[in-house]
Amino acid sequence: MEIKVMKRVLDRNQDKAEQIRALLKENHVRMYNLISSPGAGKTTLLEQTCRHLGPDYGVGIIEGDVYTDRDARRLQSYGFPIVLINTEGGCHLDSNSISGALQEFNLQNLRLLFVENVGNLVCPSHFDLGETSKIAVVSTSEGDDKPIKYPMLFRDARAVVLNKMDLLEYTDFDYNHFISDLRQVNPTVPLFETSSTKGQGLEGWFHWLEQEMKEQMNK
Amino acid sequence: MEIKVMKRVLDRNQDKAEQIRALLKENHVRMYNLISSPGAGKTTLLEQTCRHLGPDYGVGIIEGDVYTDRDARRLQSYGFPIVLINTEGGCHLDSNSISGALQEFNLQNLRLLFVENVGNLVCPSHFDLGETSKIAVVSTSEGDDKPIKYPMLFRDARAVVLNKMDLLEYTDFDYNHFISDLRQVNPTVPLFETSSTKGQGLEGWFHWLEQEMKEQMNK
Repeated sequence: MEIKVMKRVLDRNQDKAEQIRALLKENHVRMYNLISSPGAGKTTLLEQTCRHLGPDYGVGIIEGDVYTDRDARRLQSYGFPIVLINTEGGCHLDSNSISGALQEFNLQNLRLLFVENVGNLVCPSHFDLGETSKIAVVSTSEGDDKPIKYPMLFRDARAVVLNKMDLLEYTDFDYNHFISDLRQVNPTVPLFETSSTKGQGLEGWFHWLEQEMKEQMNK
Repeated sequence: MEIKVMKRVLDRNQDKAEQIRALLKENHVRMYNLISSPGAGKTTLLEQTCRHLGPDYGVGIIEGDVYTDRDARRLQSYGFPIVLINTEGGCHLDSNSISGALQEFNLQNLRLLFVENVGNLVCPSHFDLGETSKIAVVSTSEGDDKPIKYPMLFRDARAVVLNKMDLLEYTDFDYNHFISDLRQVNPTVPLFETSSTKGQGLEGWFHWLEQEMKEQMNK
């Protein structure tokens, strides 16, 4: 009984996601869905990225949060349009809420839309939001076993950011173990090793993002 | 439509949880449901706790994991009975799976049952497992904003473990901010500040657990 309903929920989510994908394509907007554990550093990565891209780049942000507006407020100072979605206890964003949020943007002014999903490694992976790509963010202090324990996200991700590299030496994170597990799940995904709070190692991530945007322009 | 079904799922979960609670009470077993983000240190805390309590204490473990048996294997060496529940993509344990797992234990030999829930700060808070108490585990490297961002868990927790205190000085975790947010959500919950990997600050946690068990015996 519940399985049938879940299938219907997912089917309906998928239909709406396809509509979003078409709408974004029509407007030449790329949408990146950032997924991580709570506290892995999505917001700080976004702050650094917004600062790097600058106010004229055409960035928008959809901020997913269970109850608060804390992350949205942190991002507000960069002058980009932000829409906050509070899930009120829900553990992931869905395409219906994204569809509503998109109506708050002037898509013609946007090139790049970041979605910061609810901090959760499981459910957000099941729900297509119509994004161009999923980005997995993981931090060294969470341990090296995340790619194997949450394979769905790492398999689907178009890029992986390994954040909090500045904490690596203080943890028992086994770098080779992490790489070997990640490559088992996803042999080719680009990996960026960063410290967002320290502003270190971000060049590769910025470069990748800009390459992605160039591809978009050439399409 | 989905809301009605969700209510039915939660009602059914609650019924089963009450049966579990009665069964555990009858057998004088206390069950602690450990909830945290992925990688906050639940497994390491359990390893330290198992080591401290020793093989004759009557400890059992139910290990919740999305796909793998990695955490269960880590805990196996302590000689306690362990039952692994793989949720196969599910983001939390429910009372039905716990009920099945309980059949694998000889409850008369147990005094204390730890449940390590799936790493997730949202959904596990919604599902009563019939536990005696929920324990929230949070780590300094996740940032100081978790109690306010995930209030349901911190409101319901009977104890909070703030782990990875050894990383505090390398992060921008604002201790006063954390305490103030936690006390806003839950003014009285005991807080234990630990480093499970370094084996530091665990005395308070052990002591609290032993006091809890004594209360059980006096009931």
